[in-house]
Amino acid sequence: MSKAKFKFEITHREKNCAARIGVITTPHGTITTPAFIPVATQATVKALTPLQLSEIGFEAVLCNTYHLYLRPGVEIVKKLGKLQQFMAWYKPVFTDSGGFQVFSLNNGLCSIDDEGVTFTSHIDQSKHRFTPEKSMQMQRKLGADLVFAFDQCLDINADRPTTEKALARTHGWAERSLKEFKKINKDKAQALYGIIQGGKFADLREESAKFIAALDFDAIGIGSIFGDPKEESKLLVKHTLLFVPQEKTRHLLGIGSVDDIFTYVELGIDTFDCVLPTRLARVGYVFIRPESGGGISNKYRYRLTNAQFKEDKNPLDKNCKCYVCENFSKAYIRHLFKADELLFYTLTSYHNLAFFQRMMQEIGEAIKKDKYLQLKKKWLK
Amino acid sequence: MSKAKFKFEITHREKNCAARIGVITTPHGTITTPAFIPVATQATVKALTPLQLSEIGFEAVLCNTYHLYLRPGVEIVKKLGKLQQFMAWYKPVFTDSGGFQVFSLNNGLCSIDDEGVTFTSHIDQSKHRFTPEKSMQMQRKLGADLVFAFDQCLDINADRPTTEKALARTHGWAERSLKEFKKINKDKAQALYGIIQGGKFADLREESAKFIAALDFDAIGIGSIFGDPKEESKLLVKHTLLFVPQEKTRHLLGIGSVDDIFTYVELGIDTFDCVLPTRLARVGYVFIRPESGGGISNKYRYRLTNAQFKEDKNPLDKNCKCYVCENFSKAYIRHLFKADELLFYTLTSYHNLAFFQRMMQEIGEAIKKDKYLQLKKKWLK
Repeated sequence: MSKAKFKFEITHREKNCAARIGVITTPHGTITTPAFIPVATQATVKALTPLQLSEIGFEAVLCNTYHLYLRPGVEIVKKLGKLQQFMAWYKPVFTDSGGFQVFSLNNGLCSIDDEGVTFTSHIDQSKHRFTPEKSMQMQRKLGADLVFAFDQCLDINADRPTTEKALARTHGWAERSLKEFKKINKDKAQALYGIIQGGKFADLREESAKFIAALDFDAIGIGSIFGDPKEESKLLVKHTLLFVPQEKTRHLLGIGSVDDIFTYVELGIDTFDCVLPTRLARVGYVFIRPESGGGISNKYRYRLTNAQFKEDKNPLDKNCKCYVCENFSKAYIRHLFKADELLFYTLTSYHNLAFFQRMMQEIGEAIKKDKYLQLKKKWLK
Repeated sequence: MSKAKFKFEITHREKNCAARIGVITTPHGTITTPAFIPVATQATVKALTPLQLSEIGFEAVLCNTYHLYLRPGVEIVKKLGKLQQFMAWYKPVFTDSGGFQVFSLNNGLCSIDDEGVTFTSHIDQSKHRFTPEKSMQMQRKLGADLVFAFDQCLDINADRPTTEKALARTHGWAERSLKEFKKINKDKAQALYGIIQGGKFADLREESAKFIAALDFDAIGIGSIFGDPKEESKLLVKHTLLFVPQEKTRHLLGIGSVDDIFTYVELGIDTFDCVLPTRLARVGYVFIRPESGGGISNKYRYRLTNAQFKEDKNPLDKNCKCYVCENFSKAYIRHLFKADELLFYTLTSYHNLAFFQRMMQEIGEAIKKDKYLQLKKKWLK
């Protein structure tokens, strides 16, 4: 069977803003955008089966190369049929480059040079080294459909000299990533995202966007935007996107709060990944829709573990139609938390992800009808 | 809607032994026996959704009254629609009397008198008291279809004077349980199991069987048989069953090893409950069928967490057709364990329960064809 190659098609452009609907085609199927991509760090979206993810409606997941390199090892994943077969997820998979975790999980424990990064494992303190070439090779072995160039991530508050230096390095690594990728991806099984950096400086973001756009990447990622401060982040992304070709799909790395998604879809971002829905689920935070009281002030969520829900017969969100809300009460799920029951993690993670998936579906439907701004207004009040 | 009342029908008797196929009818549906009943201690079979339990094919679960009394409390479960609605399991539910946990979790911390038992919570060391009447009332509030009389559980090695004393108390409590039950169960929503005790003494077991059989219980439970020593336990149950009416369904409390199930089905036991499949799953033990190498010597299981499975592409059991075995490799599930991933508990619990459910189905099919002894021979070699 000859598998489909990577392709991105925009099927509709919102008349009133830069939002668009698109379809990313990969060898393992398609992703309709805008899409939220759940994170499967260690080749599992925590507490959920791939069947449950499919039930919710997800078309792709994102795995972390750094974690899989350390455990179980990329060679083992490759031997076991690459990520799709390994985790029994036969739909599109993203992997990140490993760069972000090297920097974020090894604060002060990694040393960067122009060639690459040497770091200490957060598991057993062993020493390791990543380079752009190695990142491409690892992601190839993992077998993701959609992979990212190796970049240097920065705190958005880094000063100008630090940011300039990191950006120059990121651009050199982008070229090396692309070169290595072309060498090992002759069958075009994978597509490569170039990553735009540039910290908090609009002119550096512009320089980066032009540099990355001029290279032969299949798609564009925007890195080190953590959504805070909100207005500054928005202006940076907006400015950046002026220099990014319309026809390439754009991924905003690590972003996933509700208001951020609305902000960035409006600007023309196609895909997002974030651990927020599942991480918050595991500590007892549950997302709710605007008609159920969710809003910017409460970040669309509440703490289920509070005593007030001890006898609450209602579902987590009375306007949610997911499996969890159709079957279980707040009181039951809170009981599972109090009783240290594993099912708690499954049910809250399922609901929170279903919340995001349904929101993305509504976003898509609104764009199709050129009513995205109305939907955004309803959600962001 | 008028709900079906309790009924037990034997639909086939094995020609060559006392094994039989039956159907227990309850207000929430039927249970085809012989059946293995998974334990949902705190109103959840650990790590699995009720949907997954239904997928596996289970028709009933057993919840522990002691645990639910302490957390979240029987009044709360009642307010939330009783156990079925609380845990979204709309099929038959058993509850035990609370007695076993009072004795087993409060070793030395409970004081028994003829009236009842005072004990200390294993959660917060608070003081509580159970009596036969209270057990019936609690099980009524929980709303189980099938409930058990309050009894005094004993170590099977208890000496004769201790056993005699406990048995006399158990019989008194059986009469009081039945009396209270009849008072609060006028709608016949529930059915009550009397429990036969008597420790390791065949004559006391006989006395108990006759005593319980003579009372107006809907069904018969046999308690404090822990399967060990095997031959002695078997002879005790065999002797006991001589004095139990054929037409009443029989539950063997807490039994669930593979060979024990085969032994006791042959003697005419209809239902079993045990935490073994799920408890072992959570520490990495996986059940395998005889054609995959499972047998008495390895107790039909192996330790998945061993290093030898690091790169093993095979399913947990190559002759198992469950969701887990159809989708995941040993190496992947072992990786989940090593990486502390919650999905590990779900997948191993699912497989182990699917193993037991399929075994019970095969047992039923064999009895139907009067080939139970052949099946038993195949399994117990």
